[in-house]
Amino acid sequence: MRGAGGRSLGSAHLTTERVPTMKILLIGATGTIGSAVAAALAPRYELLRASRRGPLPVDLADAGSIDALFARTGPVDAVLSCAASGGLAPLSTPADADYWRGLDGKLVGQVNLVRHALPHVRDGGSVTLTSGRFAEPVPGSSLGYLVNSGLAAFVRSAAIELPRGIRLNAVSPGWVRETLEHLGMDPAPGTPAADVAESYVRAVEGTAHGEVLT
Amino acid sequence: MRGAGGRSLGSAHLTTERVPTMKILLIGATGTIGSAVAAALAPRYELLRASRRGPLPVDLADAGSIDALFARTGPVDAVLSCAASGGLAPLSTPADADYWRGLDGKLVGQVNLVRHALPHVRDGGSVTLTSGRFAEPVPGSSLGYLVNSGLAAFVRSAAIELPRGIRLNAVSPGWVRETLEHLGMDPAPGTPAADVAESYVRAVEGTAHGEVLT
Repeated sequence: MRGAGGRSLGSAHLTTERVPTMKILLIGATGTIGSAVAAALAPRYELLRASRRGPLPVDLADAGSIDALFARTGPVDAVLSCAASGGLAPLSTPADADYWRGLDGKLVGQVNLVRHALPHVRDGGSVTLTSGRFAEPVPGSSLGYLVNSGLAAFVRSAAIELPRGIRLNAVSPGWVRETLEHLGMDPAPGTPAADVAESYVRAVEGTAHGEVLT
Repeated sequence: MRGAGGRSLGSAHLTTERVPTMKILLIGATGTIGSAVAAALAPRYELLRASRRGPLPVDLADAGSIDALFARTGPVDAVLSCAASGGLAPLSTPADADYWRGLDGKLVGQVNLVRHALPHVRDGGSVTLTSGRFAEPVPGSSLGYLVNSGLAAFVRSAAIELPRGIRLNAVSPGWVRETLEHLGMDPAPGTPAADVAESYVRAVEGTAHGEVLT
């Protein structure tokens, strides 16, 4: 674990002192979690919003679109990815392409985001990804387990290679209350998106490195 | 954990009783570990050997070649994959394709092997993959961590979806003595390939299901 370079922003939002403004790029800004993260960050930082549908367009499954995004943003202090989870994929899904649908965007795409973002992240900055978890295996969860476990392992091991005091973490949001409501399920076991967003804020403002925050 | 259908072969190789012969397909049969597994299994079972270079040709990165392989073998009782590990891939590897080189064969390929093998594995049979591990992260290990953790998570979660009493496991061989010798490193911390092969034999003859054997 390392501190975030020369900055000390950990308790900035609990005090009234003026904080240095960071330029933050948020990918997946239009989703349930992304909207809550944007609401938490926008009042205090310069926030650039990206998603497949814009305002800044990017598709994590297309590495060229990641490069095009950074060509537009220039250097940033933090990159956050609130990538959507894929649905369930039964092991017996007939077509390989259908079974693997969640791999490119969520796993390969987020790893490529780290690789392509690094030259554009300022010293002592941070990259925060979105992982996920299941309480225990259910039918159709095998690809989700593969993706989330692979991503968590990547974050923990790649952390030791990051240059210039840049930190790397993932947030594992679990079930989000608004998502459960949207699916017509009992929202009671879910965490409100605004509370989930606090984990992303912690990843940006705190000192965590190589961790999966829950 | 479930038993292996109607069979009881757990201690077969410790006794002199005659055991029913199984037809076993071994993929990666020409590698360091594969050769040791072949030596352990060939005296007691009908063993079919496959690898990229034959005798039965297959490339796990090419799902069509997996189907072509099973069209030649017909139904089998066990499938073992001794897939080779990729080398180290620094996070700063310039080209995405070079960074991801280990993904298709070892992770996607072995998962596709399970999916494409299932219709050809007899009731109560087994599929055994090869995972891996590092003691702790070293520079260049991020893709290896991603692949091995993703594979272990897949084995544990996909196990609950396997039909007809078919078992699914992975072997995590760690450092193999012969491989260390081949690399010109100190072989002392390595496990002899013949001992590693016993884990694959246990996966075929035992009752493990959804486990990573070490």
